[in-house]
Amino acid sequence: MSVPVTIYDTTLRDGTQGTGISFSTLDKIRVAERLDDFGVHYIEGGWPGSNPKDAAFFQEAAKRTWKNAKITAFGMTRRGKMKVEEDPQVQMLLDAQTPAVTIVGKTWPLHVTEVFQVSLEENLAMIADTVAYLKKNGREVLYDAEHFFDSFREDPEYSLKTVKAAKDAGADLVVLCETNGGALPEWVEEVTRKVITHLGCPVGIHTHNDGGVGVANALAAVRAGANQVQGTINGYGERVGNCNLITVMPNLQLKMGYNLGLDLTRLRDLAFFVDELANVPHDIRAPYVGIAAFTHKGGLHVHAVQKLARTYEHVDPSLVGNERVITISDMSGQSNILMKAETMGVALAKGSPEVQKILSTVKHLESEGFEFEAAEASFELLIRRQLGQQTQIFDLIEYHTTHRHHPGASLETTEATVKIHVNGNAEYTVDEGDGPVNALDKALRKALLPHFPEIARVRLEDYKVRIIDSGSGTAAKTRVLVVSSDGTRTWGTVGVSTNVIDASWQALVDSLEFFLFRRG
Amino acid sequence: MSVPVTIYDTTLRDGTQGTGISFSTLDKIRVAERLDDFGVHYIEGGWPGSNPKDAAFFQEAAKRTWKNAKITAFGMTRRGKMKVEEDPQVQMLLDAQTPAVTIVGKTWPLHVTEVFQVSLEENLAMIADTVAYLKKNGREVLYDAEHFFDSFREDPEYSLKTVKAAKDAGADLVVLCETNGGALPEWVEEVTRKVITHLGCPVGIHTHNDGGVGVANALAAVRAGANQVQGTINGYGERVGNCNLITVMPNLQLKMGYNLGLDLTRLRDLAFFVDELANVPHDIRAPYVGIAAFTHKGGLHVHAVQKLARTYEHVDPSLVGNERVITISDMSGQSNILMKAETMGVALAKGSPEVQKILSTVKHLESEGFEFEAAEASFELLIRRQLGQQTQIFDLIEYHTTHRHHPGASLETTEATVKIHVNGNAEYTVDEGDGPVNALDKALRKALLPHFPEIARVRLEDYKVRIIDSGSGTAAKTRVLVVSSDGTRTWGTVGVSTNVIDASWQALVDSLEFFLFRRG
Repeated sequence: MSVPVTIYDTTLRDGTQGTGISFSTLDKIRVAERLDDFGVHYIEGGWPGSNPKDAAFFQEAAKRTWKNAKITAFGMTRRGKMKVEEDPQVQMLLDAQTPAVTIVGKTWPLHVTEVFQVSLEENLAMIADTVAYLKKNGREVLYDAEHFFDSFREDPEYSLKTVKAAKDAGADLVVLCETNGGALPEWVEEVTRKVITHLGCPVGIHTHNDGGVGVANALAAVRAGANQVQGTINGYGERVGNCNLITVMPNLQLKMGYNLGLDLTRLRDLAFFVDELANVPHDIRAPYVGIAAFTHKGGLHVHAVQKLARTYEHVDPSLVGNERVITISDMSGQSNILMKAETMGVALAKGSPEVQKILSTVKHLESEGFEFEAAEASFELLIRRQLGQQTQIFDLIEYHTTHRHHPGASLETTEATVKIHVNGNAEYTVDEGDGPVNALDKALRKALLPHFPEIARVRLEDYKVRIIDSGSGTAAKTRVLVVSSDGTRTWGTVGVSTNVIDASWQALVDSLEFFLFRRG
Repeated sequence: MSVPVTIYDTTLRDGTQGTGISFSTLDKIRVAERLDDFGVHYIEGGWPGSNPKDAAFFQEAAKRTWKNAKITAFGMTRRGKMKVEEDPQVQMLLDAQTPAVTIVGKTWPLHVTEVFQVSLEENLAMIADTVAYLKKNGREVLYDAEHFFDSFREDPEYSLKTVKAAKDAGADLVVLCETNGGALPEWVEEVTRKVITHLGCPVGIHTHNDGGVGVANALAAVRAGANQVQGTINGYGERVGNCNLITVMPNLQLKMGYNLGLDLTRLRDLAFFVDELANVPHDIRAPYVGIAAFTHKGGLHVHAVQKLARTYEHVDPSLVGNERVITISDMSGQSNILMKAETMGVALAKGSPEVQKILSTVKHLESEGFEFEAAEASFELLIRRQLGQQTQIFDLIEYHTTHRHHPGASLETTEATVKIHVNGNAEYTVDEGDGPVNALDKALRKALLPHFPEIARVRLEDYKVRIIDSGSGTAAKTRVLVVSSDGTRTWGTVGVSTNVIDASWQALVDSLEFFLFRRG
């Protein structure tokens, strides 16, 4: 640990190359503000020459004050056989008015001559000219050496010439790019060390995850002396994605002893926020920040974690804004229930009759096929009901669904009716839908909305159906898991029945009951 | 690269500790068969002492012949202060009748004394006694040293004593477990090297992914001389998951030069198959096998890839059963169709109009949410229909399901009617069932049975429902997978609709059509 390390975020440029990832200009500004608050050192906002959205971002960014980060524009070295000051793409980099500019250039002889069809000498001139021109115009210049690690394997001498050209022309930092994402850590470490020795100064590292070791490659380069890691939030990026900064940052700060000046207690919020804006479901298994990252299922492990957290936790979850989750599985015992009750603000004593009663109810429901692991709201309702608390919002008299199918589907009908008593009124509603469950969901909301207008805020985010005991064919039991959200919080509920409609009904009712109970 | 490396799969045991992962006994057998076909060397089937499903798996597994893999039972060292032959958990390991047994024992003094409350000496005796007893009973014994890397940091001397005790008692392999998943590769490499020197023989490595470097940690250990990698398909496992074998296997075989004897061209099929049985959505960004893993979005990259694939591809996608995806759809997918047609006894020529027509139908259905990976019967019917072969057995006029639910369920009714034309007769039948799909299944069979009495032999073995596009809540699309059997053969069929009843109907009809067509 000799040099300080900086974090360079390219979510807004390289991240948007990922399948299904796109941000509006406003999204980009909001993400950049979050990253700046969090303490990231460089935020690459886009490629001003490539699309109008990126150009609009830089216009907007230039009006703002940034607390921690330098906003950076990305582009390429000048084209072959053209003067740098006449290349419109380079001109747009200056027009972006950012304090720093990152330009990418070619390293790999194969790529230079066969794909780009310029001479190796001309490529060196393209690099040097562009760096020198941007420096002359007062920019901090970062030089991204594309394909560096593949190129170094075939032609180390020419590869070194390209980064030497950038450095000699005044580049503030040379960044080695593992563009294909296929290198392994020992190669990244070895090559990075050689380049640092050759140039006599630290370099940056930019990796991809195609071999599943994108984070390890970045860490290997840091061990070899790299002083900047480039990556994206949640590892968005083309193909399988870039180096995931959400994983790299805590590894560097909590494990390798680098003080990056980042507020890691907001790490999980940052990860979720960017997912939300990109409209990407959270990866429950994301290291450090995933919902499952500190989830303990086995009874033995739960016992050990309670005695001594570090037996099964690599870091304290609160350091990264996450929390320990004790799931209720068939291996569960009393300790699971006590811990869950504590998070609900209910104090229960180990061995008390209430706990015994709850435990035997849980065991019974689990043997019926319930699973509360991802349905913490149903589990909380179960505890509250066992404790005699009033959570029910209506009495069901009857519901009824009907589905008629004809080939050609023109006469297809799916409808549901719901008859309930709520707040002393009888409500009898009907609606149609894309299937019996959707129709039932709509009819139930129609019946409840006059009494609880706030349920309009409850949105179903996820709906999963699982057949348990699937060997019984179409007579098998069905478990339905519903994930709901009111825009700020998310909760899961569960239902089980041999009939998928009844199972869905249970989970839907639990979801609304939980929301209304929590709202108080 | 000095020692051969083996692959040890623990999807069926450690994988099932993952949030939301569970397999029926039949699922377990099907996964094990796939892994065996693929060439994995050890398949850990479960923990016979922990639940009846695992015990049932071992009973079933003992009846079968395994081509490549050794089936392995997992358990713990004997309990403290008890004779090994009197420990029922150890006895159940022998009852599992597997050629190999893996036992986990404690390494970390903190864990031994504070959580398990036995003395350090007794812990060594527990390890030695259990290994020796299993060896005496003719088993190959693998010893999993839990928490090895955390323990080694605090007390290297005692840590080494535990693995020495296992080795001296006759363990065939000592496996170092990075249980907390928080170590970094350089530590794993250093410790592994020291243990190998101390024991004078290679060891295995078992890692988790909490620091996002689970795969890199396994590779680091192999570099240090480890000769077995333990992990799970798709990285399932508790918290953020185990070392992902789907990533490790191609890294070892394609990049590090280890010949594992695996058929990697079926890697993607294997990954998808296990996801389907576990009812987990495919990670589009999974290294090597994800749908996006060889997808090229940027125009420049597409150009370069077309000129020279290795500029943006770390390996040839066909080596791992994947394919390049670019905006201009090429001949991709043809080879799958040709291979499938060949197994059906139909000769098709590459590039022929029939193949083009089938391919475009498949692409269309896939975009609608169909997946044929586990529904080979539906895929065969699709090809036959496109070739103009007659597979249809009846004309549907209408079906109708109705479900009425009352609290208390005493007045609950679920019934279905089916109106069809079959062999020139009109059949109009009604039945009731445990849910709308079950009622429909029974009514349809009632209508067909007089005409095709042999369908009485067809039994539904498995019925899975999968919500795709689950963000649309209860209006989301549903994919239904049905596995059927006639007592000797098993086949899978698929249906997709926003309505679970319609999706189930499609899969049911395909199942019966396939059976009757095959019967000729």
